[in-house]
Amino acid sequence: MYRNAKNVGYYMIGDGALSQLTDLLSPLRDKMPAAPAIHFIDHYFEKTELCQQLPILEWDQRIFVDTTDEPTCESVDYYTGQVKKFLNGSKPCALIAYGGGSTMDTCKCVGNLLTNPGKAADYQGWDLVKNPAPYKVAVPTLSGTGSETSRTGIMLNKEKKLKLGMNSDYSMFDQVLLDQRLTASVPRDQYFYTGVDTFMHCFESLSGSYRNTVVDSFAEKALDLTKKVFLSDDMMSDHNRELLMIASFKGGMAAGFVGVVHPLSAGLSVVLGMHHGIANCYALSVLQDIYPEPYEIFMEMLKKQKVNLPKGICKNLTAEQYDALYEASIVHEKPLINRLGEKYKEILTKENVIDRFKRM
Amino acid sequence: MYRNAKNVGYYMIGDGALSQLTDLLSPLRDKMPAAPAIHFIDHYFEKTELCQQLPILEWDQRIFVDTTDEPTCESVDYYTGQVKKFLNGSKPCALIAYGGGSTMDTCKCVGNLLTNPGKAADYQGWDLVKNPAPYKVAVPTLSGTGSETSRTGIMLNKEKKLKLGMNSDYSMFDQVLLDQRLTASVPRDQYFYTGVDTFMHCFESLSGSYRNTVVDSFAEKALDLTKKVFLSDDMMSDHNRELLMIASFKGGMAAGFVGVVHPLSAGLSVVLGMHHGIANCYALSVLQDIYPEPYEIFMEMLKKQKVNLPKGICKNLTAEQYDALYEASIVHEKPLINRLGEKYKEILTKENVIDRFKRM
Repeated sequence: MYRNAKNVGYYMIGDGALSQLTDLLSPLRDKMPAAPAIHFIDHYFEKTELCQQLPILEWDQRIFVDTTDEPTCESVDYYTGQVKKFLNGSKPCALIAYGGGSTMDTCKCVGNLLTNPGKAADYQGWDLVKNPAPYKVAVPTLSGTGSETSRTGIMLNKEKKLKLGMNSDYSMFDQVLLDQRLTASVPRDQYFYTGVDTFMHCFESLSGSYRNTVVDSFAEKALDLTKKVFLSDDMMSDHNRELLMIASFKGGMAAGFVGVVHPLSAGLSVVLGMHHGIANCYALSVLQDIYPEPYEIFMEMLKKQKVNLPKGICKNLTAEQYDALYEASIVHEKPLINRLGEKYKEILTKENVIDRFKRM
Repeated sequence: MYRNAKNVGYYMIGDGALSQLTDLLSPLRDKMPAAPAIHFIDHYFEKTELCQQLPILEWDQRIFVDTTDEPTCESVDYYTGQVKKFLNGSKPCALIAYGGGSTMDTCKCVGNLLTNPGKAADYQGWDLVKNPAPYKVAVPTLSGTGSETSRTGIMLNKEKKLKLGMNSDYSMFDQVLLDQRLTASVPRDQYFYTGVDTFMHCFESLSGSYRNTVVDSFAEKALDLTKKVFLSDDMMSDHNRELLMIASFKGGMAAGFVGVVHPLSAGLSVVLGMHHGIANCYALSVLQDIYPEPYEIFMEMLKKQKVNLPKGICKNLTAEQYDALYEASIVHEKPLINRLGEKYKEILTKENVIDRFKRM
């Protein structure tokens, strides 16, 4: 049985394209007069000029998404509650996310919970969402996660100590608007950590054993683009910011299986609350034996862009914390098998995994 | 103003994926019980086994599309009449095209005419279609035209001596099913001529002056794939047939502007009724000065795949025919400017163009 892959409905790209958002929303507004749009905005923008430029009408709702930590089932339930209270039984004409992976994933998950009963945790997994979500628009302000085109919205489940997505066609955005001007003011380190997420999930997908020619072809192109950007002299030039937006967009479409980076990275997020992008960087920094070539390229990228990855982040943890890091990593069977085969535990013994964390 | 690009809604790819077509149609059939599906089938398949495998129900309509010649406004109006008569005022649950560019384009154009008044010729141009078409599924049996993902359905307008498409988001398919098994029995020459169409429109787009980074990135990938396929030892191996399906799919998404190949090729189609794929090959064969590198690669492909392109197809035509070839080529301003600049007529004088045709 082959999978029927869904595409994002529409996409627009261009320097300054944000100014066309009003036009993109107008057929939706016309179709549902007086229905509010719900704007999910990364809290980082709360006091910035960007907020003044957004096409927010009087009867719309603004939700500032706290992205200090990544989305959790609790945070998604909380925002869902806010939106439901605001809507008071009425329907929104659209949900719009302005931000990086955390803001976009929050919007995707809240969207599903507006049309499906229960709580966020009920839908962590594959194809558990039954009813279509409202129309959703993504306006990424940070490139790399691929959330704008992927079919998942990832949340941390603190209770189950698990990071898992709402994996569903209904999680997908209907419209993506890519405006490279929006990533001009991102801090360099953050731009790098998030951007290399595309590099990470694409090389992992391409070096796995579960493959698919279409996914490969998207991943190959996205990988080429990230190399171009991060091995260039200035990863943040106008042109490179545009290329990275495209890389992220295609990387999200290359939703293949990941490998060993993502499980270790998930461990860091679950146990230490570390953000996904930088956690990936730490993970790859101790996987030279498993991914020799990507490791070399990644080290070259760090050097070229003068980005710092301070050592010692897992030094002096408690035995319980090391255990937890191991558990939260090794639980990701499928990606580990994808790279290392069924006997992955022979390589990734508990000692081996903990030793890797200690070397970060 | 940036363009809001539409994507094909869903795509499925895999060897033998055709067997899942019933499943793909079932939600549509459920939603509109007893509504017929209209199957547009390349007439080449009329007496073949493939026809037995298609999920055609008793109350569905089969249209065998005569692909001896490429679609014309007249042929599209004719098939539209057949479908309207069959439907007798009722609505179809889906239109499905099984074939190459001619069959898919016919399906796209008829779809628009089922929900929009008037005749095919009324909609030749950009964004003239006002109402959405019925749900459409593409099942390509020939790779290269990119019709499965493009927003145009090309027709020859004999009256105006013009080849022009119904360029509209409504022309696009909602679902694409790619099954490389379907291209296994295509004659080698035809497989080559149609397949290199992707190579042609991608290199033309990439060597033009009207550019766009997203289109470029699709075109670059599609171009790489066609080179891989046609410079390999066997362009028709299982794997290469799969790659060419993906190349065609991405090439259709790279709907950029073409260059000098397509205008000359259109001349051959308009005046001599030549099919698009082979006409492109003849066009490039006399454009070594304008596209030196693509010319060399193309010659290498011909040689490698032992495909024949017999010389002398425009020998001994009448003066009127040469004039007509020139007129039907030079009318395509935009692509000619794209490659040669505003003063394209200084290079492509009438003598120069006619001389090129004579060398084919």
